[in-house]
Amino acid sequence: MSQMTELDGTASADVEFALTAADAAREDLASMPLDQRSQGLLAVADTLDSHAPELLPLAEAETGLTRPRLTSELRRTSVQLRLFADVVSAGDFLDVRIDEEDPGFALGHRPDIRRYLVSVGPVVNFAASNFPFAFSTIGGDTTAALAAGSPVIVKGHPGHPRLSSATYRLVSSALRDAGFPDGSIGLVLGQSQGVEVLTDERIRAATFTGSAQGGRALAEIAARRRIPIPFFGELSSVNPVFVTPQALVQRRDTLAAGFVGSVAGSAGQLCTKPGFLFVPADAELRDVVARRSADQPEHRLLNPHTGSGYRERRDTILSTPGVRLVDEGTLRIDDTGETWATPTIVAVDVETLKHQRDRLLDEAFGPLSILVEYEDLSDLTEIARELFPGNLTGTVHLGQGEALAAIRPLLVQLARSCGRVLVDDWPTGVAVTPAMQHGGPFPSTTNDSGTSVGTAAITRLMRPVAYQGVPAQLLPAPLRDSNPWGVPQRRTAPGESAQWGQLRTPTDS
Amino acid sequence: MSQMTELDGTASADVEFALTAADAAREDLASMPLDQRSQGLLAVADTLDSHAPELLPLAEAETGLTRPRLTSELRRTSVQLRLFADVVSAGDFLDVRIDEEDPGFALGHRPDIRRYLVSVGPVVNFAASNFPFAFSTIGGDTTAALAAGSPVIVKGHPGHPRLSSATYRLVSSALRDAGFPDGSIGLVLGQSQGVEVLTDERIRAATFTGSAQGGRALAEIAARRRIPIPFFGELSSVNPVFVTPQALVQRRDTLAAGFVGSVAGSAGQLCTKPGFLFVPADAELRDVVARRSADQPEHRLLNPHTGSGYRERRDTILSTPGVRLVDEGTLRIDDTGETWATPTIVAVDVETLKHQRDRLLDEAFGPLSILVEYEDLSDLTEIARELFPGNLTGTVHLGQGEALAAIRPLLVQLARSCGRVLVDDWPTGVAVTPAMQHGGPFPSTTNDSGTSVGTAAITRLMRPVAYQGVPAQLLPAPLRDSNPWGVPQRRTAPGESAQWGQLRTPTDS
Repeated sequence: MSQMTELDGTASADVEFALTAADAAREDLASMPLDQRSQGLLAVADTLDSHAPELLPLAEAETGLTRPRLTSELRRTSVQLRLFADVVSAGDFLDVRIDEEDPGFALGHRPDIRRYLVSVGPVVNFAASNFPFAFSTIGGDTTAALAAGSPVIVKGHPGHPRLSSATYRLVSSALRDAGFPDGSIGLVLGQSQGVEVLTDERIRAATFTGSAQGGRALAEIAARRRIPIPFFGELSSVNPVFVTPQALVQRRDTLAAGFVGSVAGSAGQLCTKPGFLFVPADAELRDVVARRSADQPEHRLLNPHTGSGYRERRDTILSTPGVRLVDEGTLRIDDTGETWATPTIVAVDVETLKHQRDRLLDEAFGPLSILVEYEDLSDLTEIARELFPGNLTGTVHLGQGEALAAIRPLLVQLARSCGRVLVDDWPTGVAVTPAMQHGGPFPSTTNDSGTSVGTAAITRLMRPVAYQGVPAQLLPAPLRDSNPWGVPQRRTAPGESAQWGQLRTPTDS
Repeated sequence: MSQMTELDGTASADVEFALTAADAAREDLASMPLDQRSQGLLAVADTLDSHAPELLPLAEAETGLTRPRLTSELRRTSVQLRLFADVVSAGDFLDVRIDEEDPGFALGHRPDIRRYLVSVGPVVNFAASNFPFAFSTIGGDTTAALAAGSPVIVKGHPGHPRLSSATYRLVSSALRDAGFPDGSIGLVLGQSQGVEVLTDERIRAATFTGSAQGGRALAEIAARRRIPIPFFGELSSVNPVFVTPQALVQRRDTLAAGFVGSVAGSAGQLCTKPGFLFVPADAELRDVVARRSADQPEHRLLNPHTGSGYRERRDTILSTPGVRLVDEGTLRIDDTGETWATPTIVAVDVETLKHQRDRLLDEAFGPLSILVEYEDLSDLTEIARELFPGNLTGTVHLGQGEALAAIRPLLVQLARSCGRVLVDDWPTGVAVTPAMQHGGPFPSTTNDSGTSVGTAAITRLMRPVAYQGVPAQLLPAPLRDSNPWGVPQRRTAPGESAQWGQLRTPTDS
């Protein structure tokens, strides 16, 4: 509903309007029947698909991402809406539990208690720069919030304000046509406007994808509120990849191709880009990586701010003692101030990495990656533990016939310090599925109890509420015996132990 | 394993020993088959039951709680262990999701991805003063952590150090006999020792039950760590109860009896004690409440610290302009410095409560409660919203034939600001069941995404990890197709939509 004062940011009265509307929508959205909520998400998906011809050029102009990449990202975004629509219809995400009254319970009379998950209330979503569709106005965080029944105010990313506004208008109109209350989605632009929304007491949770610095600052603001709120920030991840000696010998070319492709794609501006590739020292590998890297076309970085940040990180790394060039790559600033680059690949040994950790370990957001040449496979577990405490992903490439017992400790360590562990694959190209986990220990995220990709994200913005002895007419629909929404209800009958009761099939409404 | 230097607190070397042991136990405990984990919890329950004759007198002497109350609390604690043992065996708390590889997925080739919940790692549990069994050494938080596969270091409460040590020795020995690794449970005593454990990098989450002041200080320490950790604090709750005019007229005596019983039980030292009873002004109710209150026996408060805190809060309330006595109650300090009291009940009108909110709204931990005399039923929703932003419970007493539509807005508001909503019941006597929710919006807890009572608590100390393309031999047991632990696996087959796959029954191991 907010009107933009072009690109200067949202006017103060419009920020207040968005907050009032989100708060007013809260109850209607939370109590909207699941089928209608699901239909609304499908309608938004249809709208995105049918407006691709007008959205894609805007995205291309504002972000410098390629048309094929943006086309597949937009498709991912609409498929994501459809996947969440299915999860909403199924209803088991509400985790409905009904303890039937039991006068003979082991601890004395047990009352009738019914519990489910409800939306925490209105959410602010700080959109990312690098996924103008999939992590922006109607990206994963917004979709998960709406699916959970929460109104969302999106703080649009300054890198693509026109796309944010266009997307917002389409989504808002599709939701209204589907019977969603006004205020189900809002958009504000401007940094101070984002902080204003974050600190408003009507807002009950925040999601964020962006830099470590920005994320930590906002997380502190969320924690210092009179009533602190949950803050789910995805900050920074370097996604180490470990290649065994056997794997290297058996498929050097394939590994080099996969590595360079994963680093160069979207100009390395992906949260799961492999920032470190641990390999035995191998001149042939360096050569083939260098050749493949040099073959990559020049790619524009997202915006001048991203460009200057990348140049600075790259300068720091290249000027660090012990860092050797594998492929220097190109770097160019055009007339409009945009930065263009091909990949930069460097190599270090393990000792250099340890001694220069303050210069080398931070994320380089852009097409740069570091080969770390190791001597002994058995050192990798301790390296992973010491240098990589929190990442979105950790990857191991194994040889055919590898002695798996020797690898197990490394995988155990990666499972402790990463949200997703991969074998013989690359971490970019995150699948949107029920089992995906995108979120790892700090500092990759500020809270790794949930995910920001995949349908499991739906419960991240929900909280449990129990009702004790409440008459049916005053119970929320999914907790009633009549079960009008037809959701799975886990019942514990009198005399039953704590074992889950059988899933109860819906009866009439 | 830690040795106590009597009551001075745990020696520094023993704190380090407990941390090392917890860290060392981490992997073995997390990968212990669920049946064995479940058996261990049952063994601890048996130990508690059989050692009741030695534990109960210790608890009585250290806390001043009555023998019947402590007997039922100990039973609650062992039943709780048995309920969690059942949940562990059932295995669905692991939320295992398996996306089968699907070359034809809507977004391109979908890899094999498997996700489940694992323990976050070693946990520190700051024990409560008021439940020396059920929220202490082997109370709900410790049990939920062990059930989730997390080693726990308990920071014993200074109010019952001998009981804490005795319980710890019994539990530790029972777990060892059941094959649990050393370090599965540890105990430290002393405030600085607790902070030392909380700040240690081997500790990955914290639970706490206690005062708002202590809880906030510890929450800040947890947030300021180099690697911040989740902190689940249960701080303070005043549990408002609203009585409609019809309910009052129809059952004045029953309400008065229930109210006084709920305030006086355990000398009001319960987190769900009703601190405010909203009723129409009614001299007869005040009389019967006063008579019943005066009939209550004198009860010792938990310890001198609790006693002085209670006296101070009571003085503040009694000296607040507009506060009228209903029953002043008794107050006595004995030779050993312990405070003894009978209930104090006062009355105010709504305007006084609003004007004096800074003096009246904080929790009074002890047998004191405030009648708030209101004029108009329709004002209660706004009062609940304005004055009670975060509570463990909110209660409404309705009359027979009450017009429920008029009550709905109040229940909707209570569901926003409380973890549990009750009708025609009292919030004390929290049931330990699958559907219980004990945890509400701030300031009642620092994080209301989970519960600290009931079996749903098991996932509070877990985080998701996904495995992509990992060979069966390197997968954790519950994620393998062979399913050796026989846990429910939710599979999404190729070509299936996001709808949950069928629960898969275990095959051979």
